[in-house]
Amino acid sequence: MKRRIRLGMVGGGQGGFIGAAHRVAARLDDQYQLVAGALSSDPQRARDSGAELHLDPARCYADYRAMAEQEARRADGIDAVTIVTPNHLHFPVAAAFLEHGIHVICDKPMTTNLADADALQRLAGESGLLFMVTHTYSGYPLVRHARELVAAGALGEIRVVQVEYAQDWLAEPLERSGQKQAEWRADPGRAGPAGALGDIGTHAFHLAAFVSGLQVSELAAELTSFVGGRQLDDHVQVMLRFKGGARGMLWASQVAAGSANRLQLRLYGSKAGLHFDQENPEELWLTPLGAPAQRIRRGATAAGGAAARASRLPAGHPEGYFEAFAQLYRDFAHLWHARNEGIAPDPAAALIPTVADGRQGMAFIDAVLRSHQAGTRWVGLR
Amino acid sequence: MKRRIRLGMVGGGQGGFIGAAHRVAARLDDQYQLVAGALSSDPQRARDSGAELHLDPARCYADYRAMAEQEARRADGIDAVTIVTPNHLHFPVAAAFLEHGIHVICDKPMTTNLADADALQRLAGESGLLFMVTHTYSGYPLVRHARELVAAGALGEIRVVQVEYAQDWLAEPLERSGQKQAEWRADPGRAGPAGALGDIGTHAFHLAAFVSGLQVSELAAELTSFVGGRQLDDHVQVMLRFKGGARGMLWASQVAAGSANRLQLRLYGSKAGLHFDQENPEELWLTPLGAPAQRIRRGATAAGGAAARASRLPAGHPEGYFEAFAQLYRDFAHLWHARNEGIAPDPAAALIPTVADGRQGMAFIDAVLRSHQAGTRWVGLR
Amino acid sequence: MKRRIRLGMVGGGQGGFIGAAHRVAARLDDQYQLVAGALSSDPQRARDSGAELHLDPARCYADYRAMAEQEARRADGIDAVTIVTPNHLHFPVAAAFLEHGIHVICDKPMTTNLADADALQRLAGESGLLFMVTHTYSGYPLVRHARELVAAGALGEIRVVQVEYAQDWLAEPLERSGQKQAEWRADPGRAGPAGALGDIGTHAFHLAAFVSGLQVSELAAELTSFVGGRQLDDHVQVMLRFKGGARGMLWASQVAAGSANRLQLRLYGSKAGLHFDQENPEELWLTPLGAPAQRIRRGATAAGGAAARASRLPAGHPEGYFEAFAQLYRDFAHLWHARNEGIAPDPAAALIPTVADGRQGMAFIDAVLRSHQAGTRWVGLR
Amino acid sequence: MKRRIRLGMVGGGQGGFIGAAHRVAARLDDQYQLVAGALSSDPQRARDSGAELHLDPARCYADYRAMAEQEARRADGIDAVTIVTPNHLHFPVAAAFLEHGIHVICDKPMTTNLADADALQRLAGESGLLFMVTHTYSGYPLVRHARELVAAGALGEIRVVQVEYAQDWLAEPLERSGQKQAEWRADPGRAGPAGALGDIGTHAFHLAAFVSGLQVSELAAELTSFVGGRQLDDHVQVMLRFKGGARGMLWASQVAAGSANRLQLRLYGSKAGLHFDQENPEELWLTPLGAPAQRIRRGATAAGGAAARASRLPAGHPEGYFEAFAQLYRDFAHLWHARNEGIAPDPAAALIPTVADGRQGMAFIDAVLRSHQAGTRWVGLR
Repeated sequence: MKRRIRLGMVGGGQGGFIGAAHRVAARLDDQYQLVAGALSSDPQRARDSGAELHLDPARCYADYRAMAEQEARRADGIDAVTIVTPNHLHFPVAAAFLEHGIHVICDKPMTTNLADADALQRLAGESGLLFMVTHTYSGYPLVRHARELVAAGALGEIRVVQVEYAQDWLAEPLERSGQKQAEWRADPGRAGPAGALGDIGTHAFHLAAFVSGLQVSELAAELTSFVGGRQLDDHVQVMLRFKGGARGMLWASQVAAGSANRLQLRLYGSKAGLHFDQENPEELWLTPLGAPAQRIRRGATAAGGAAARASRLPAGHPEGYFEAFAQLYRDFAHLWHARNEGIAPDPAAALIPTVADGRQGMAFIDAVLRSHQAGTRWVGLR
Repeated sequence: MKRRIRLGMVGGGQGGFIGAAHRVAARLDDQYQLVAGALSSDPQRARDSGAELHLDPARCYADYRAMAEQEARRADGIDAVTIVTPNHLHFPVAAAFLEHGIHVICDKPMTTNLADADALQRLAGESGLLFMVTHTYSGYPLVRHARELVAAGALGEIRVVQVEYAQDWLAEPLERSGQKQAEWRADPGRAGPAGALGDIGTHAFHLAAFVSGLQVSELAAELTSFVGGRQLDDHVQVMLRFKGGARGMLWASQVAAGSANRLQLRLYGSKAGLHFDQENPEELWLTPLGAPAQRIRRGATAAGGAAARASRLPAGHPEGYFEAFAQLYRDFAHLWHARNEGIAPDPAAALIPTVADGRQGMAFIDAVLRSHQAGTRWVGLR
Repeated sequence: MKRRIRLGMVGGGQGGFIGAAHRVAARLDDQYQLVAGALSSDPQRARDSGAELHLDPARCYADYRAMAEQEARRADGIDAVTIVTPNHLHFPVAAAFLEHGIHVICDKPMTTNLADADALQRLAGESGLLFMVTHTYSGYPLVRHARELVAAGALGEIRVVQVEYAQDWLAEPLERSGQKQAEWRADPGRAGPAGALGDIGTHAFHLAAFVSGLQVSELAAELTSFVGGRQLDDHVQVMLRFKGGARGMLWASQVAAGSANRLQLRLYGSKAGLHFDQENPEELWLTPLGAPAQRIRRGATAAGGAAARASRLPAGHPEGYFEAFAQLYRDFAHLWHARNEGIAPDPAAALIPTVADGRQGMAFIDAVLRSHQAGTRWVGLR
Repeated sequence: MKRRIRLGMVGGGQGGFIGAAHRVAARLDDQYQLVAGALSSDPQRARDSGAELHLDPARCYADYRAMAEQEARRADGIDAVTIVTPNHLHFPVAAAFLEHGIHVICDKPMTTNLADADALQRLAGESGLLFMVTHTYSGYPLVRHARELVAAGALGEIRVVQVEYAQDWLAEPLERSGQKQAEWRADPGRAGPAGALGDIGTHAFHLAAFVSGLQVSELAAELTSFVGGRQLDDHVQVMLRFKGGARGMLWASQVAAGSANRLQLRLYGSKAGLHFDQENPEELWLTPLGAPAQRIRRGATAAGGAAARASRLPAGHPEGYFEAFAQLYRDFAHLWHARNEGIAPDPAAALIPTVADGRQGMAFIDAVLRSHQAGTRWVGLR
């Protein structure tokens, strides 16, 4: 029996959403043990948050640098750290842990600018450590199967990529109500220069690239901020040109009234189309030209090997967001064990988003900002 | 009892789709009688097509000019003409009948360029005759209700307009297989300079404008032709700026594998969103911020007055495309009778698309072509 | 060109629903001309209703017997009559027209008791005339395709038949509000001894038999009347045993709050299942064991020959209730012309419900009533 | 911080499905620690299974009696045991742990006959210990909300209850292929006298009772076994009479080709209807008479307090089967802590299915078997 990976967490104190989601994801398959944290920069809150999680008080840090140093020195120190702070801290925190030889799991967007992303990619590369960026939606079994279908040619040559991500939680100025999630996301000092663009646009971009296997060559974009007084965009519109000639559109909005978390991807190829809707991840639609649409269920034989590998329950027993998230953690664990045992990892596990994907997300943000500032001119990705 | 309107038709001979649809639409509510036609420019085909429709052989013309002249002279001559020819003939045929004092029902796009559209609008205005452009989808009861909801402020201030029209019937080079519908649509000489743009893009544009009540101020567009050897676009991507600040995207494609006739409109306002899908016209979704989504059914009390006026069957007894189409004919008949009786028509009937809407559709096409040629630059509508 | 069939109508005066539906159905394909009617037994209302329909006043009768006689004598007399009266008149009216050599189209349930149904079947048989009972839902293209799939063995051996018909229009005592449709349906003197059972239960029964090709051998039933003061059932529950061993359930209710006209059929065989929902007749689900569910669209190639024959529009251009209804009229017209021309009709047209199906519907009602009265005992169909 | 509950498990060795599901459910909210098990009666398999779960080898038992005795003696012995054996062992295992003062979590059906269920209810009552029966589906947030809506009168007086549970995994004789899950379920010696009836019928029965708050007074049933050579039923049809006058039907099948795990409940009251589909547990439909249907989302404010209490993620981030299951464990933990602290538990937690519900499930099975044997006669529940 393989031992559980010892995990630390930076950020994710009481009341946060994403820290708790990471912890459930890590716990679901019982391959991790959370043993240390810098859950808050406020010492009291750091201790209280740690106590709730049954952490040893001695391993509840208020400073991530101290945590990196001390954990690196312990015989039973953490193997990996999960970073769930506001965006502006991703880079320094990740750098600190890499420096101390600790593997990194980092939320997105990876940094607040492309230069930092490049720097971080270099650091990670030099360290030789594992670095996962949590584009959660790529953990869904049917997203994996969609990728597999495309790669196998089931769609023919892809012509059109339509991806969208619609939410409505910022349809009103929630950031002025004291809600913490909204507050830092609306603050350029902590979120960086991208609002909805960084928060959900990067997820849409990653999903489209992950499934289609295509690379955006150029884009033309416009950002809008609909809610008065908001400094960052809450609405993103992008036209896409892909290498090889495909065309597409990306739309992300946090003011789309009535939308909860509607991330949808539609691909159209010369032979078939494909449709995935994150709010109903138990089914994937394959729509061949001239034949009935097929509803492929997660858990069914027809969903293929990649989906089966990422499933925990039989068809009809709904899985969801936690399981998708847990799949990233499970794949990361697989890579970690393979590395320790000196064996070749399952190529499927190697599909998890890495520092390179994080860097591509930042290149997307960078291009959208440049195009927007240039009046929606076509610009290339750097 | 009001007498039936005497109708003529130009185009729409054997084997065509849209002519037959117009005839069913005119017949459904029993307010028209088809009595004359220039169904084909081939005399034999014109006669044969007329015989199938129980037309008097004397009123089966091979030349639309002769038809206009002779019908204008008859005591029992046609009251109105329906024009269902390829696009390049819309203008001269409409002009000929207007000239002879005959009301016009014309398919879209109204002409093949903006100058002709301006000219036709002028002619129609001077004639004082009724002129309807058949943007069929505006005849759906729940499209009418959607417009009513927006006008009543149910959505608050509209921020986002997402409209799309996806088909796949031209995913392969059907125009080279001898299929007539595809053949003329792919031929710039008969279709004009716009392919999917003119064929379905204008429908999407009209629907968005009809329901939202908003006007596009500027757009940025790119056209693509995916199928080798095709001269006209089969794929259209447009970003939209509306007067008043709303933003939007329009996407129309005839190569979207697995899509039949998927015209969808989504509006997002400060208070609620709205979703209509032409393939399921029996329901309309209203999605208020912070409350459950409501599925409004056609035929139900909750669908309101405008929808009730345009409905023929109780809820749960599906209506469809023919009824939407018939509603345009029924409203046109209402306007015709009101005019003859010298009474004010129901304002609801006056919502049918007119020569002005046809002209706006051409302005949209014109702007998209200019933006595309200018490398997706933002251009204003003329 | 074939001449239009001359049609008369008994019942269906101003304000009724089903008479108007029959008229649209007859008109849709332009193969009938309504030329005579006994639209009401009230002479003034009969004349007024006729005038609205452009009928010759001389052919607006107040008495169906007079109509049968006089029309039979005219050289241009009606070829066929449509009977849309309350149930208790179906038998005498049908008998009168058969007697005068006029073909009959009759609404369901065909009579108010099994003995009358037997008598009518005998009369119709002896007359050699066409007799159609309008089980509308069997006119849907995808219902035809479902039957075709079953017959071709796509489901394997059918094991389970689940059919249901849920409405809510009688959830409150509408019959006491003066609403005419509700009034006579709630009156045993006009509706017969079956309420929801006769009004919608027979439709469900016919649909199940039509698609599955199976015959009910025995049933066990319970009727309920939920609305106080109502004399007839508004809720029907039946367990079914089919010849050959299949089992099933039938449920029909007019008090199912929130249901409009939800007639659904699900079949499960040894190889695949099948699902049709009348409220969304544009799609049919085929669910093979161990493979993805297929959504078959009306108008698509995959829908097969029977559906294509009954379609008027391409996929994605919704058809509905009127077209299903019109298909029965179109098939009846086909049989009428074939008979006049002495040629063999298309077997597909011969699938329309006949007097024998009407009689089976009455046998179903009869068995349900007997089982109910015997405390839900299993009883055989007579 | 409350300590984690120490949990043992009987059954659930390598390869099983339901044991693993229980473990994830217990782990999800981090309130349990699995510390002991009699995972298999085969000593080697018991040890191997335990090792995989990081259990202390000393606490991996091959005999549940030994486990009960020894764990009861340990200072750090288990607080509660989860029983996931084949049905015939539920009773003796539960009795053994109750006897040793250990709280019990038991899978369903609770026993193999009503007498044992009565005996077990008595034992549990006398012990004063907690006893949960895992009717998983009652843990869904929207099932809780549905119950809350009914209790608050949103449906008015309930008239109709339609519940069904359709699967297809036994459409072929899987039990003869060596598949363990199928094997014991098809064996009367281990499953008891009820096949699909016990496996899924009891879930449907519990769900209907849980949400409606109604009690079945009488039922009439028929069981069928479609697959040749199968000794137990694979298809169940039941008509239901409820105290107070409501009527209903229950249908459960394991041969419904194309169905995965389709547990659906529909209630119809005098004011509104309600629809829940287990395969899409993120939404609940409320269908008021005369107003648009409402789609209530899990995670949204409109889902109310009971659902919010049982939710872990915001709307649009799908939860599923594991979270429903985990909710039962979380509620059980809440009751356990409240009891230890001598405080009154949250009434919402007290809704988890208890030994009394398990006993009612057996009374349902007993009545169905009696009715079936008596030729579908109406029988009362004992």
